[in-house]
Amino acid sequence: MSSDRRVAIEPSTRSAAREQVVRWFSVMASNTADPVAGITRPSYGEGEQFAHTFLREEATALGLRVTEDAALNSYMTLPGRDSEAPAIMIGSHLDSVAQGGNFDGAAGVVAGLAALSMLRRHGISPRGDITVMGVRAEESAWFQTSYIGSRAALGRLSPEALQCRRVDTQATLAEHIRQCGGDPDVLLAGQPFLDPGRIRAFMEVHIEQAPSLVEAGVPLGIGTSIPGNFRYPEITVTGETAHVGLPRRFRRDALVAAARFVAQLDALWQRWEDAGKDMAFTVGRLHTDAANDAMTKVAGEVCFSLDVRAYDAADVARLHEDVLGIVATLQDECGVRFELGRQTQAPVATAASDIQAALTDLARSRGIASMPLASPASHDAAVFHEAGVPMGLLFVRNHHGSHNPHEAMDIDDFMLAVDVLTDWLLAQG
Amino acid sequence: MSSDRRVAIEPSTRSAAREQVVRWFSVMASNTADPVAGITRPSYGEGEQFAHTFLREEATALGLRVTEDAALNSYMTLPGRDSEAPAIMIGSHLDSVAQGGNFDGAAGVVAGLAALSMLRRHGISPRGDITVMGVRAEESAWFQTSYIGSRAALGRLSPEALQCRRVDTQATLAEHIRQCGGDPDVLLAGQPFLDPGRIRAFMEVHIEQAPSLVEAGVPLGIGTSIPGNFRYPEITVTGETAHVGLPRRFRRDALVAAARFVAQLDALWQRWEDAGKDMAFTVGRLHTDAANDAMTKVAGEVCFSLDVRAYDAADVARLHEDVLGIVATLQDECGVRFELGRQTQAPVATAASDIQAALTDLARSRGIASMPLASPASHDAAVFHEAGVPMGLLFVRNHHGSHNPHEAMDIDDFMLAVDVLTDWLLAQG
Repeated sequence: MSSDRRVAIEPSTRSAAREQVVRWFSVMASNTADPVAGITRPSYGEGEQFAHTFLREEATALGLRVTEDAALNSYMTLPGRDSEAPAIMIGSHLDSVAQGGNFDGAAGVVAGLAALSMLRRHGISPRGDITVMGVRAEESAWFQTSYIGSRAALGRLSPEALQCRRVDTQATLAEHIRQCGGDPDVLLAGQPFLDPGRIRAFMEVHIEQAPSLVEAGVPLGIGTSIPGNFRYPEITVTGETAHVGLPRRFRRDALVAAARFVAQLDALWQRWEDAGKDMAFTVGRLHTDAANDAMTKVAGEVCFSLDVRAYDAADVARLHEDVLGIVATLQDECGVRFELGRQTQAPVATAASDIQAALTDLARSRGIASMPLASPASHDAAVFHEAGVPMGLLFVRNHHGSHNPHEAMDIDDFMLAVDVLTDWLLAQG
Repeated sequence: MSSDRRVAIEPSTRSAAREQVVRWFSVMASNTADPVAGITRPSYGEGEQFAHTFLREEATALGLRVTEDAALNSYMTLPGRDSEAPAIMIGSHLDSVAQGGNFDGAAGVVAGLAALSMLRRHGISPRGDITVMGVRAEESAWFQTSYIGSRAALGRLSPEALQCRRVDTQATLAEHIRQCGGDPDVLLAGQPFLDPGRIRAFMEVHIEQAPSLVEAGVPLGIGTSIPGNFRYPEITVTGETAHVGLPRRFRRDALVAAARFVAQLDALWQRWEDAGKDMAFTVGRLHTDAANDAMTKVAGEVCFSLDVRAYDAADVARLHEDVLGIVATLQDECGVRFELGRQTQAPVATAASDIQAALTDLARSRGIASMPLASPASHDAAVFHEAGVPMGLLFVRNHHGSHNPHEAMDIDDFMLAVDVLTDWLLAQG
């Protein structure tokens, strides 16, 4: 770390970067607004497309080198002095859930561009390339599969993923990529665009998706880890449709079975919390069969999604066993059948300890309060970690959580993350 | 009871009636078939309309006197010798749930017509009128309110009920009645078509909607009572949409709250069963907000229906208190809000003990095995009971329950009910 480099960023430069940041967020918000509430940038859809096109144009205007890969991830590069030196990457995703907020994902790309804008304004040329990556399709709400863009960039996207259908359009991922101008055949061949051996580190700035920093009164979190998960996008419970008055002993009530499943997972989570262990489960979507349900019918079928996550691979495996055990018991007790359907998973990822230490020191030397923070959410950085790239995470305090229209990140907090990120880039030489 | 009257029904007459019954069921099944499965006769919709029109034509062909009221209930009468004598009514409903079975409701009307057909073929003229009533809109799945047709006939339909919307068309009950040719204004004025003081008894034949008779190996059940209920067609639980990784202490998960509600009611029911007490609860429809739910979002809103029933007014009241208590606790524990919305209720009804005894004796003297049976379901007979009319119930053994396409009533079992009903009519002089 060189403190002379850090002082190179002048207040007027920072002020200009802050103005850019405000404008970028504002343009994205107004152009990807959802007609009902918040913003919507579907993976490989209109809003995401807008965000990529817009930020690439802005990057070009900043004098950055701009390109894209077969999956249409965007790369915006400040070239290094030494073309042989490994690159540093800064990235996050530009899609959002439906009726989500403006910052979940986009903040990480904007942070990278703001940092490069400041370096460039001061004529600083880094040792190796610094590339800001706008990642595609991180929000698995759309294709119900994890990390599409980052896995594609690293040649790690499974062929099955290309056949997943977007929940709203019912068109496949391959069809959507092609429609946007990408080339799914390259991804099917597993051909990587990025060589992880040539990446020195992957840095991701993200709003915190829980109010832990708000609760602690601290603007920045230094990420320690990203949870692994297993997911079943569409579990079906089949019982038997019956009359509302059917005695209990005759019932095969799919809704009671599903409800007991959820209640038992909630009780399990309570026990983990009591034991001081972290996990989370979410059933975000649950429906009785709309074509055949009624106030006066016992539900014969229920469909629901399941996401279970934890910070330790052994915990994830143990939870998976617990879930299967609950399913087996409920099948017996309720006389129903659980069909778990397609399963996806994402591995646990840990931030590089030297990056964690460096970010902590840099924040402290600027007088910025920070705290170590385990991310509650999945992030593309996990895929780079899986590919052997050291990764670091910076979380920005955020009111009202994310995946809803009420995200509230203060731009002053955000600029503190940009400061620490920029300092860290300068420190890399 | 006069045994000489009973022997008046000759085997050839019974055989002809059996053929009519088979034809009537068959014509109704083929003309009201649901394109997906089973049959669908929506209240004040096409299938129900067909059943009324068809059976009225058949009744006319049998020489019965046919009329209808402002709510379009059908009345098919074998006139009595003494126009001053109180009438006997036999009835049930002709609508069905969506994708339901052919016998739930219709069997009661067909049983009445088959009995009158036999009496008429033998030139038997009863003391007072015997009227078969085809009741409208008993299935509360459609307008989410109970006993529309029978309450309308007795001037007991609430003005609010006329404003209930059918779940599929979203048109009001008043609009549907008018569209079918009825007069909702008469019902709004509370003008009764029937005078309960002029009805000697109301008899309802119905398939059993649970497999208790199948389990016991008995073809006929002599009804003892009809459960009362309270219902909330649309309970809304409002929590907060949030990110899938949000720690438990920050969550206000509407789905977890709804699931715990269902699981707790299920546990409550188990305790009642263990204590040998009868009740039933059903959440037949439950949906997270389809416009805003996802695998990666904590559910901010859930809507569901609730039906709770028991055979004793005090039990119904106690269950209502229990439900409100569970709601209050869950609101606190889960940080959500339950809005219970519109409530409907139906009173407990008891079959007249002399009718129960007479039916039991008549079955025994024919060598037909029968058993006393508390109906798990609601029936129009309950409204007549409420209006002070003595009522009786005959249940026919039925495999696979009802409110589903797999109802399986054996015509031979059904004809045993027709025999007992006919004997009972003959016994009334």
